[in-house]
Amino acid sequence: MEKTKVIDDSVSLPLGFKIHGIHCGVKKAKKDLGLIYSESKANAAAVFTTNKVKAAPVLLSMNNIINNEAQAVIVNSGNANACTGEEGYMHAVKIVEKVASLLNIDFNNVLICSTGVIGVPLPLEKILHGIEEIYQNLNNSSDIFDFANSIMTTDTFPKIYSKKIQIGESIITLMGVAKGSGMIHPNMATMLSFILTDANISKSALCTSLKESVSKTYNMISVDRDTSTNDTAIILANGEAKNEEILTDTATFDIFQSAVDEVNRNLAKMIAMDGEGATKFLEVQVINAISQKSANLIARSITSSNLVKTAIFGQDANWGRIMAAAGYSGAEFDQSKVDIWFKSLKGEVQVCKNGSYIFFNEEKAKDILSCKDITIILDLNEGKSNAVAWGCDLTYDYVKINGGYRT
Amino acid sequence: MEKTKVIDDSVSLPLGFKIHGIHCGVKKAKKDLGLIYSESKANAAAVFTTNKVKAAPVLLSMNNIINNEAQAVIVNSGNANACTGEEGYMHAVKIVEKVASLLNIDFNNVLICSTGVIGVPLPLEKILHGIEEIYQNLNNSSDIFDFANSIMTTDTFPKIYSKKIQIGESIITLMGVAKGSGMIHPNMATMLSFILTDANISKSALCTSLKESVSKTYNMISVDRDTSTNDTAIILANGEAKNEEILTDTATFDIFQSAVDEVNRNLAKMIAMDGEGATKFLEVQVINAISQKSANLIARSITSSNLVKTAIFGQDANWGRIMAAAGYSGAEFDQSKVDIWFKSLKGEVQVCKNGSYIFFNEEKAKDILSCKDITIILDLNEGKSNAVAWGCDLTYDYVKINGGYRT
Repeated sequence: MEKTKVIDDSVSLPLGFKIHGIHCGVKKAKKDLGLIYSESKANAAAVFTTNKVKAAPVLLSMNNIINNEAQAVIVNSGNANACTGEEGYMHAVKIVEKVASLLNIDFNNVLICSTGVIGVPLPLEKILHGIEEIYQNLNNSSDIFDFANSIMTTDTFPKIYSKKIQIGESIITLMGVAKGSGMIHPNMATMLSFILTDANISKSALCTSLKESVSKTYNMISVDRDTSTNDTAIILANGEAKNEEILTDTATFDIFQSAVDEVNRNLAKMIAMDGEGATKFLEVQVINAISQKSANLIARSITSSNLVKTAIFGQDANWGRIMAAAGYSGAEFDQSKVDIWFKSLKGEVQVCKNGSYIFFNEEKAKDILSCKDITIILDLNEGKSNAVAWGCDLTYDYVKINGGYRT
Repeated sequence: MEKTKVIDDSVSLPLGFKIHGIHCGVKKAKKDLGLIYSESKANAAAVFTTNKVKAAPVLLSMNNIINNEAQAVIVNSGNANACTGEEGYMHAVKIVEKVASLLNIDFNNVLICSTGVIGVPLPLEKILHGIEEIYQNLNNSSDIFDFANSIMTTDTFPKIYSKKIQIGESIITLMGVAKGSGMIHPNMATMLSFILTDANISKSALCTSLKESVSKTYNMISVDRDTSTNDTAIILANGEAKNEEILTDTATFDIFQSAVDEVNRNLAKMIAMDGEGATKFLEVQVINAISQKSANLIARSITSSNLVKTAIFGQDANWGRIMAAAGYSGAEFDQSKVDIWFKSLKGEVQVCKNGSYIFFNEEKAKDILSCKDITIILDLNEGKSNAVAWGCDLTYDYVKINGGYRT
């Protein structure tokens, strides 16, 4: 997977959306405040972190999404507004009030997200001032990349993916923007991800679509096995494409779903590839598992293992650690049936057959592992279920970045 | 906790045991083969890894411990004999046969353990030859430290702890030897640990004692959240102290239990302190939790978090990561009641009150975190359950050590 694929030339905003990002002073110099606005009220769905410790913006957004409608999303980076008590919640309320009044929309049609350091008071005045600035520039300088940059923390590149589909006579655009790249081990949720579409789709269909998609995309990546307090994925569909309404269990739903999956899968892979300190992108394919649950558990356990991740960093074909990670994943499988391959642009090599070692050329394995994108394939030879998970290596830079994140 | 405490001057073998360790050639130069022998048949109990992928020696020992009796334990380091198929199992059988015939004891009274790289054939001839050498020297050069060294892999120091207790007129000695120090995230088991005692204790009391002790000692440490394929803890009690038999639910059992706990707790802490690449020892105390389960989950989740571990390495009082790790632990607790302190020889500082930030002196916090032994205290202010977990920081050296473990 090439970083150049990140910036899709065809990136274009769905109809009826405006989006912008600026620097308001939460961070020293980088962009840190972004706004998404739909000119008409949009159907909306969202999933949030399962972490028991939820940030103030998560709690407020969970409240405002109940009617599955939204018209704006305000996002700041550089401060998570988590573990900030009642004051933190009031800060989130004031921010949402400001956005609602400027855009002249309902309070509960504004969603809010924050990302950054936990346990530090939000610089409210700077953000309120910044919202004014964004509002004044929203019409003449709507810019996807400004927004994508404004939600980044330790990310090294903005994460955008867009897709066009046709339903009936209508061309529908989907555009997703996401950020990583530490405290990444999503669980029924993700870091921050925003999917905008002009599709006309029912609320229930939209909810179904997002939940299904998240479980096989964001929930299958891991950078450090730390589930965040602020994970949020939001999809807004404003119907401006004027297509016939998409309902669940229809052919058009399937078309829409596969487009949502494509957007989320690519954003998820970008996040894994951009994991803190990562030098390699890791894809783990588990095939022929006895159940979907077992396939998922094994794939995710392997991408989450510090020992597997350091071996990938060291370009060491240490497949025993892969077996160990599969073994403690909680999945059902027969160790004596497992085959393992390493694969990359340089070719592929089998390193384990029937759960046991086989002779393999260490030099060839090293060469294969020297590539940037590494694939590990586990064939469990037991059933028909498959799963794919994504991750990255564990490097000196991960330790460096997180040894002094706040300072 | 000082490494100097590792070598307890009072270390002495319980009555009736012989123990030795040598270099037989599994490793290049270091000791790699050890033997424990009890002159009389001992009552025995053991717990093994819950990893679904179990090494050949684990499978064989699980078989031989069924009658809860044992007289010898043979251990090699440098090769885990895991993922080695039927050949690996036959190698384990041949090793046990050799030990049984030389010592003239029953095959099923010999237990076997291996630790080291996974998925590489065991050099059987070297080990069989080594067993002869150990046997010839067992009488005249019985040495605890030789044995403790022979079971080490990436450990930087041998781990021994012994304790004497009096029951009636009898003085009972307990001696434990353990090794770490990577792929450490025990689950109802531990890396390798051997507890020898001359106590006279019933089989059922011995099993109860070990299981109870392991759950609050080895199962509360983590180095890298990777549960090994070879984890084994064994206790042998040969009765040579001639005390009145210890039975469960008696006053003498409680005396014995607290001694077993002391031995295991100290060995567990040594393993955490000696975690691969570790520069700091981390103790997490969770107090006033609503349940024991919640207390355990939170304590272990914090010691397992890469983000907490890197913050400790960086001497950064980033308590938000501690809250996040508690939050995704699966435990029940009220975030708004949590108080957090950092503590060390340099003093203590509260960094969080009622789940929210409070002002604290960053300089003082940095000074406290500059010590080698760090304690994090979480007061959940909800119930009466407490738990303690142990771990270490995540450092450049962990990445270095595991980036090329096999090579």
